[in-house]
Amino acid sequence: MTSQNPLLKGNAIIGQSGGPTAVINQSLVGVVEGLSGSPCIEKIFGAHHAVSGIIKNDFIELQDIPHDRLDRIAKTPSAALGSSRDKPDAEYCKKIFDVLAKRNVRYFFYIGGNDSSDTCRIVNELARKNKYDLRSFHVPKTIDNDLVNNDHTPGFASAAKFVAHAFIGDNLDNRSLPGIKINIIMGRHAGFLTAASMLARQHDDDGPHLIYVPEAAFDIDQFKADVAEIYGRLGRCLIAVSEGIHNHEGTPIMTQLAANVEKDAHGNVQLSGTGALGDYLSEVLKEHLGTDTRIRADTFGYLQRCFAGCVSQTDAHEARLAGRKAAELALSGERDGSIAIQRVSNNPYEVEYKRIELTDVAAKTQTLDPKYIVHGNNIDPSFRDYLGPLVGELPIVELLRAR
Amino acid sequence: MTSQNPLLKGNAIIGQSGGPTAVINQSLVGVVEGLSGSPCIEKIFGAHHAVSGIIKNDFIELQDIPHDRLDRIAKTPSAALGSSRDKPDAEYCKKIFDVLAKRNVRYFFYIGGNDSSDTCRIVNELARKNKYDLRSFHVPKTIDNDLVNNDHTPGFASAAKFVAHAFIGDNLDNRSLPGIKINIIMGRHAGFLTAASMLARQHDDDGPHLIYVPEAAFDIDQFKADVAEIYGRLGRCLIAVSEGIHNHEGTPIMTQLAANVEKDAHGNVQLSGTGALGDYLSEVLKEHLGTDTRIRADTFGYLQRCFAGCVSQTDAHEARLAGRKAAELALSGERDGSIAIQRVSNNPYEVEYKRIELTDVAAKTQTLDPKYIVHGNNIDPSFRDYLGPLVGELPIVELLRAR
Repeated sequence: MTSQNPLLKGNAIIGQSGGPTAVINQSLVGVVEGLSGSPCIEKIFGAHHAVSGIIKNDFIELQDIPHDRLDRIAKTPSAALGSSRDKPDAEYCKKIFDVLAKRNVRYFFYIGGNDSSDTCRIVNELARKNKYDLRSFHVPKTIDNDLVNNDHTPGFASAAKFVAHAFIGDNLDNRSLPGIKINIIMGRHAGFLTAASMLARQHDDDGPHLIYVPEAAFDIDQFKADVAEIYGRLGRCLIAVSEGIHNHEGTPIMTQLAANVEKDAHGNVQLSGTGALGDYLSEVLKEHLGTDTRIRADTFGYLQRCFAGCVSQTDAHEARLAGRKAAELALSGERDGSIAIQRVSNNPYEVEYKRIELTDVAAKTQTLDPKYIVHGNNIDPSFRDYLGPLVGELPIVELLRAR
Repeated sequence: MTSQNPLLKGNAIIGQSGGPTAVINQSLVGVVEGLSGSPCIEKIFGAHHAVSGIIKNDFIELQDIPHDRLDRIAKTPSAALGSSRDKPDAEYCKKIFDVLAKRNVRYFFYIGGNDSSDTCRIVNELARKNKYDLRSFHVPKTIDNDLVNNDHTPGFASAAKFVAHAFIGDNLDNRSLPGIKINIIMGRHAGFLTAASMLARQHDDDGPHLIYVPEAAFDIDQFKADVAEIYGRLGRCLIAVSEGIHNHEGTPIMTQLAANVEKDAHGNVQLSGTGALGDYLSEVLKEHLGTDTRIRADTFGYLQRCFAGCVSQTDAHEARLAGRKAAELALSGERDGSIAIQRVSNNPYEVEYKRIELTDVAAKTQTLDPKYIVHGNNIDPSFRDYLGPLVGELPIVELLRAR
């Protein structure tokens, strides 16, 4: 809905929330660039560590940073403002408003995933209720790629590029010293990032040979049979497993393993930052196939979300433009919304940046289209048509002999 | 020692052994290029999976591969011939000789680390004993950088570049969501790769804040105190830990953890391909600092040795030239040796490729110069002078605020 007051003057606040990505600073700089030069904008406050910085009045002023420094910040991975996993409740939001009102903040931009878009929604609704004229925009960001009404989200393609590079190398490593190799990839409810491992396939028997995503129930007996079949046939087996895999009852395998499960403010169980799932699956396979079988597990962990020097240029570009679009819409009189990246065509690849309602994205989870999931243990080749343009060119593998 | 027969005609065998690297194919292609066009060389046999391929008569002919395909192979990570961890004993070597003699193989090149150079030495000595005119050369390769009489070894710089990139990203990740983060890095006896994490430091309080290498005894109580001090001061702590850390008695911490320790043919304990060490150190810190402290551990595992697209150009170049040098020496009449990379000057950076005796490198382990190890928990800034030229330029980090 368009605001009654298109020339709303005041200050702006920008926050970066949730898990950082390799391109989240592109979106930050995009918003700053989009606001710069507008007669409506006085100061641009960067909230240090997101909402927690707002209620502590901890801000970094962004309006006077020279263009070349902004550009270096944009290219630096992770959240330059600092992040937070706080989920504001009514009381928390009241504190935020005290700060907004005191500082005459009229433009609020929150860069983050679905938890963050929900925070943005809550802040926005409180503003409406208090008849405080605020323009609230959510800028998408998540390596999980799990925002609804988006073709994909900034941060995902760079993480996917990391996963593809890692699997290209690890598939060749596994060829040279054959055995069973399990790689655990981030993704609580959505298997997009785990599915990205399929980009590593260039030759007939390239791994990953098996891919397990949270969208399909994980059956440990089926897993053992799947691996035994591939290993028996190829003499090696490379496996991509999402950290969020769960059993038929929907209980994450990780929860079954952990005696004392750590949870964050959103009630999410800690899945990353531990090798427990990979080690458990290794043990299961050793019991099944014998301890003389070479079985290894790696957990990609935090490396995959902020790795320097492995950024998708498409991702960097789109993250920047998503930030700019939010600023432009806010300045043009739109009151609130979330920026959604939607694909217009695939050949040539082209996207548009659309405003959608905050309620259309907040706290909802997009998952992999079932058409991409094959037999619950693999990803269809057509997923490459979706993902390829986002990740860009990958190193070419030349083999001396396939096996 | 120079051979009596400078124009020795016959076939060549090349093998790639041990853990693969991102540039081991550069050395393979370097040897092939160095041999190509010589009237002494008839066929060039690539041993499929190293010595195990020789005794199985499993070879890939390399003499007719076009230059452009060779170049693509050189740029492909991991061992294109396949690798092996077999350690030939007298009986095994006898089988190798039967194959060498039958095939009129007069040139033997073995690309690998210190276990592999020892294999090369054994094969060479058996040839001398049997008065079989064989030219045997070891071409260095190891991400561990632990060969004596070498300034550094091919494969190390690319792995170090990966570690530096990972730490640049992870340090920024840890800034944005502060807590304690442990990263486990490969290195059984030598801490070079773990020490490479120091390249990620660009600003005063950048991590890694603590670096533990196998060259210094690891004391768990000192570790807890070290982390508590940094965490108390900075509100975060990024830690690099070598997988090979051991206690004052010399027992690896990993050995103490594992109930059933897996060993390879060289008697080495399995350190990689499990998150056990990182998870153990996390638990120790949680007990010490309280479970509400955010503590995470990642184990870089196999990602660091063959990651595609993160190759040091210096490393790639040197690996190629080391292979060529071995071929040139063999063709010029030298009977045996290992190629050692030695630094001539640091500014401008310049190296030479010298022939050293196989016995001067075989089965010996180079470790970090004690001058680089500070208080048993850090690496001196001067290590950057040694490592910087090998890794090359790294992404520049621009911060909005240091803390």
